[in-house]
Amino acid sequence: MSIPETEIRKRSTATAEARKNPVKTHRDTVKAMEDLLYVFIPVLDHGFVRVIDYMGSDHAVVQAARTSYGSGTKSVRGDQGLINHLMRERHTSPSEMAEIKLHCKMPIFVARQWIRHRTANVNEYSARYSILDGEFYCPEPEDLAAQSSTNRQGREETLSPKANELVLATLKTEAFRDYVIYEQLLGTAKNKGGMSSHADSLLDLEDFSGIARELARMNLPLSVYTQWYWKIDVHNLIHFLGLRTDPHAQLELRKYAQVIEDVFAAWMPFTFEAYLEHRKYARTFSRTAMKALKRMLDGKVVTQKGSGLNEREWTAAFGDLI
Amino acid sequence: MSIPETEIRKRSTATAEARKNPVKTHRDTVKAMEDLLYVFIPVLDHGFVRVIDYMGSDHAVVQAARTSYGSGTKSVRGDQGLINHLMRERHTSPSEMAEIKLHCKMPIFVARQWIRHRTANVNEYSARYSILDGEFYCPEPEDLAAQSSTNRQGREETLSPKANELVLATLKTEAFRDYVIYEQLLGTAKNKGGMSSHADSLLDLEDFSGIARELARMNLPLSVYTQWYWKIDVHNLIHFLGLRTDPHAQLELRKYAQVIEDVFAAWMPFTFEAYLEHRKYARTFSRTAMKALKRMLDGKVVTQKGSGLNEREWTAAFGDLI
Amino acid sequence: MSIPETEIRKRSTATAEARKNPVKTHRDTVKAMEDLLYVFIPVLDHGFVRVIDYMGSDHAVVQAARTSYGSGTKSVRGDQGLINHLMRERHTSPSEMAEIKLHCKMPIFVARQWIRHRTANVNEYSARYSILDGEFYCPEPEDLAAQSSTNRQGREETLSPKANELVLATLKTEAFRDYVIYEQLLGTAKNKGGMSSHADSLLDLEDFSGIARELARMNLPLSVYTQWYWKIDVHNLIHFLGLRTDPHAQLELRKYAQVIEDVFAAWMPFTFEAYLEHRKYARTFSRTAMKALKRMLDGKVVTQKGSGLNEREWTAAFGDLI
Amino acid sequence: MSIPETEIRKRSTATAEARKNPVKTHRDTVKAMEDLLYVFIPVLDHGFVRVIDYMGSDHAVVQAARTSYGSGTKSVRGDQGLINHLMRERHTSPSEMAEIKLHCKMPIFVARQWIRHRTANVNEYSARYSILDGEFYCPEPEDLAAQSSTNRQGREETLSPKANELVLATLKTEAFRDYVIYEQLLGTAKNKGGMSSHADSLLDLEDFSGIARELARMNLPLSVYTQWYWKIDVHNLIHFLGLRTDPHAQLELRKYAQVIEDVFAAWMPFTFEAYLEHRKYARTFSRTAMKALKRMLDGKVVTQKGSGLNEREWTAAFGDLI
Repeated sequence: MSIPETEIRKRSTATAEARKNPVKTHRDTVKAMEDLLYVFIPVLDHGFVRVIDYMGSDHAVVQAARTSYGSGTKSVRGDQGLINHLMRERHTSPSEMAEIKLHCKMPIFVARQWIRHRTANVNEYSARYSILDGEFYCPEPEDLAAQSSTNRQGREETLSPKANELVLATLKTEAFRDYVIYEQLLGTAKNKGGMSSHADSLLDLEDFSGIARELARMNLPLSVYTQWYWKIDVHNLIHFLGLRTDPHAQLELRKYAQVIEDVFAAWMPFTFEAYLEHRKYARTFSRTAMKALKRMLDGKVVTQKGSGLNEREWTAAFGDLI
Repeated sequence: MSIPETEIRKRSTATAEARKNPVKTHRDTVKAMEDLLYVFIPVLDHGFVRVIDYMGSDHAVVQAARTSYGSGTKSVRGDQGLINHLMRERHTSPSEMAEIKLHCKMPIFVARQWIRHRTANVNEYSARYSILDGEFYCPEPEDLAAQSSTNRQGREETLSPKANELVLATLKTEAFRDYVIYEQLLGTAKNKGGMSSHADSLLDLEDFSGIARELARMNLPLSVYTQWYWKIDVHNLIHFLGLRTDPHAQLELRKYAQVIEDVFAAWMPFTFEAYLEHRKYARTFSRTAMKALKRMLDGKVVTQKGSGLNEREWTAAFGDLI
Repeated sequence: MSIPETEIRKRSTATAEARKNPVKTHRDTVKAMEDLLYVFIPVLDHGFVRVIDYMGSDHAVVQAARTSYGSGTKSVRGDQGLINHLMRERHTSPSEMAEIKLHCKMPIFVARQWIRHRTANVNEYSARYSILDGEFYCPEPEDLAAQSSTNRQGREETLSPKANELVLATLKTEAFRDYVIYEQLLGTAKNKGGMSSHADSLLDLEDFSGIARELARMNLPLSVYTQWYWKIDVHNLIHFLGLRTDPHAQLELRKYAQVIEDVFAAWMPFTFEAYLEHRKYARTFSRTAMKALKRMLDGKVVTQKGSGLNEREWTAAFGDLI
Repeated sequence: MSIPETEIRKRSTATAEARKNPVKTHRDTVKAMEDLLYVFIPVLDHGFVRVIDYMGSDHAVVQAARTSYGSGTKSVRGDQGLINHLMRERHTSPSEMAEIKLHCKMPIFVARQWIRHRTANVNEYSARYSILDGEFYCPEPEDLAAQSSTNRQGREETLSPKANELVLATLKTEAFRDYVIYEQLLGTAKNKGGMSSHADSLLDLEDFSGIARELARMNLPLSVYTQWYWKIDVHNLIHFLGLRTDPHAQLELRKYAQVIEDVFAAWMPFTFEAYLEHRKYARTFSRTAMKALKRMLDGKVVTQKGSGLNEREWTAAFGDLI
């Protein structure tokens, strides 16, 4: 996979111990996943993804599909052909038979987008019960582009070096400030922050033992890191990857999705290949685009204006084809 | 567990081979489940349940819960105490982190009830693609009681020996007849059934090669066996077991649920114990029943008529208590 | 819509009364749906679909989408353009804001396929509590084709008139026989069926009051009709229609899907149009098919053999294009 | 309902217009809900809940249940008795036949807890596309209690007046500061904030037109308000209310749940009453608690130590009974 080994191992504290004592199993087991288990794969400045457990493999998908089809499919095609067939025909239930569990750490604004995939099981670190660490996401300079004027979502224009510097300095100092105040509200701060905040004065009070954790966090920014256990089946994983590795997806979540895509490739090579073939690098032509395509293949000249497609649709369908 | 070893092994064809080659894993592994893997556990006359795979253990629940609570819960209580606490407080998301995959064979009328649990992943043998086996459920004589007059669902009154005999003979011969006709409609029958059916005459046709499988099955009874792969997380498994091991549940599905309950006990002993304590053998008193209970504990005499509960509610709440 | 008015009204018993007393509402209301409410739309020989309730309209989708995008989308495009955009970009959550509830009656083997769409809410008539009607599906002669040899699912070859006649006679008489036995097992039969069954003798017993309903139905064939209330949101409805109106889908379920598609067209014309454009009449080209397409549009001659696609894939992608 | 009319109407801008033009419908309609439609019901300092649409009523639950039971239940009991029976026996599927859609505005930290109920349909205002308003939650003084030492979640100890004042001042000024910086990062600020932030200097740059919205929001605190459309069926609504109106639930989310509970009471009075009887004011006794209870009712003296329950369990089961 494309994740550099040295980078991966760097933070891997749990690995060494967990690897000492492998046990025997009769379950469906994937060598490449055994090597990945518990390894922290870094994402963004303080985040990570690591595999905690997995169930099944390409074989589990084949096994379930052959049960569905019964003797009907026996020896008709090999395992890879069958998996391709299932992906093409959108027979998705066999891929629900494999499951993966990840431990992930990400900024809260990323988690908020991520959680919208409701089909996963999630256990998130609770800031009601526990104190959040003082870790905040700060983008890399190259990821700090300006709001695109043509696309309300993207970041296309680059900033001047000076603007870049000021924006990053702002994000860092404000996050730091917010965390100092969080500690003061909790009553755990040792010293004043020296930032002329009202919170500084809390340290002068004799009787102040902090407000509830669930309230103190209220002032923390959306860039603060949280973490969770996240478990999902392969059908829904593919849906997640299709949406979240898309170039229009939010950059930060995309970086997590790309790492998870690499894990998927290592885990289920046949299913991953079918996903590339029939989802990621496939293209859907609308009814109107099909009519234009038919005319093109009949040798006619078709222009956007005559196609019935608007500019955006035309570019998406034919921009790189003609 | 309560399943007799000899009975279990009897049909176990896949076991021997699958057990030859265990591999090493760093995953969460449960010895008792390794012993159960691939073993056919018989249910009803032709059905079975067998474990195909599992993910996690009691430990996975603890691990996810401790992530949620963060350092807040560290060393506060042991693993079993934590699992009990989660079950009692209905903090169910950690139990979604463990998953089990079963291969099951059951009559279609049982499958129809079972499938209503929508939270599982299912791959069922398809009678559109493949030919169903000639196996039909026929109840044990002791399960063939008459429709109760007090409870539209149950089977409480026993039949006379003669009625028993006639009912069982009817079910058997009619199922046999239906299967002969199925084969005739498919064009796979070798000989006439000798049952003065129109279908018998199909064998005299020179050009008849059978109707589509998806149509031929239409005449098969609801007692015919089907099979599926069924995968579910522990939170939803507990919900399934709570409903389906209940004495009011359909007898045949209950027998499957009881076997799966035994598997669950072997797999996750702490979670199973918490399920017994807080679900299966727990009792919920309604607001009105609580008022009656309070008065009883204050030493007052409370009767059904004075309680505000109807007879059925009164019996369910207090029938075995006072 | 394409459903003949006279046919629709024929069985409409509940309509007249329900239409007498309309009430005032401030809710999102669709005239075309008000006309359809409670009307029985016939499907197959004894089945129907009828609309019981609906929530929202095209407007509800627009409203939810504009909330998501905030002022960002205000006046950028009209409602229809926005709905098209959502469908194209697979922003499906706004379409979850509209919901429909149908009352449907269908053979059990159809219900078994249908129920696999787990995202709907279902309340099915229970044969544990109540006695099923003596109604069984018998296909139209033209739908009774033979098992295709090229496609294990389909029904492509036609039967000889004689075979047709024998098959239909078989299905009818056997279903009738099964129902007579059902009544004998329930103890509700008045007279013997005269079919030399063991069940006939049950009528001679003095003490026989019938076996439990949940057991007696066991002998009924999969062609017996059941019914349910079925409620689903538009996102999942579109998924259902996409799969079930496909020519490869089971013929009988397809007939229900086509009726529901007509209802959908009357209910949400913009969303329906976007569904036709981007789902039903859209086509997805795999990565390999895209490479072939690129070469075709560059003026190269591409053959199936040189395309990397197998015959089936080639035909699906290009069969009607070149 | 318990929501003061005058308070409710105060912010109701959309109401007047929407109420002008009621239309006729044959659908299941609830007078009390028609009065509530589109009305802003205030929650917290800047939040609200308002009903956008609803489908069904108590009648829809009865209708679906009678379909399930068929003629079996006809005239056995009245509608209210049937609804009570369904709730008691946890036959939940009929309650899935009613649906409600709400428009809600709440702080992000509340939304993060709320969204964990995965069974709802959600369309949230997107800070990727649009600019968030400068509204932040600031607790009422009486809700600002200290972290309880006995319960990591709660807020039981009160703060001194001086601490209260400083905490509130901190929350307000820091939220204000964060919003000023948000505007500066977006390039929409007109004037410097005068807070010696790096962001202030961004206004001196000639070429700075703001960073992407999805990045600028990163610095906003978790107390900033967001809003969404939220649609849920009654089965899942009851689950949500049971958990979120509990005294242990997060105070801020509980306030929303209480308002929604009032709406529910107005909408479906029979189902609401059954929810009070069998959920909200019901109590579940564990297996061990049942043993203690049996002994109590037999006249024995039972103490916590002899009961097998720990102190917390004992108090929860018997604290207010003996």
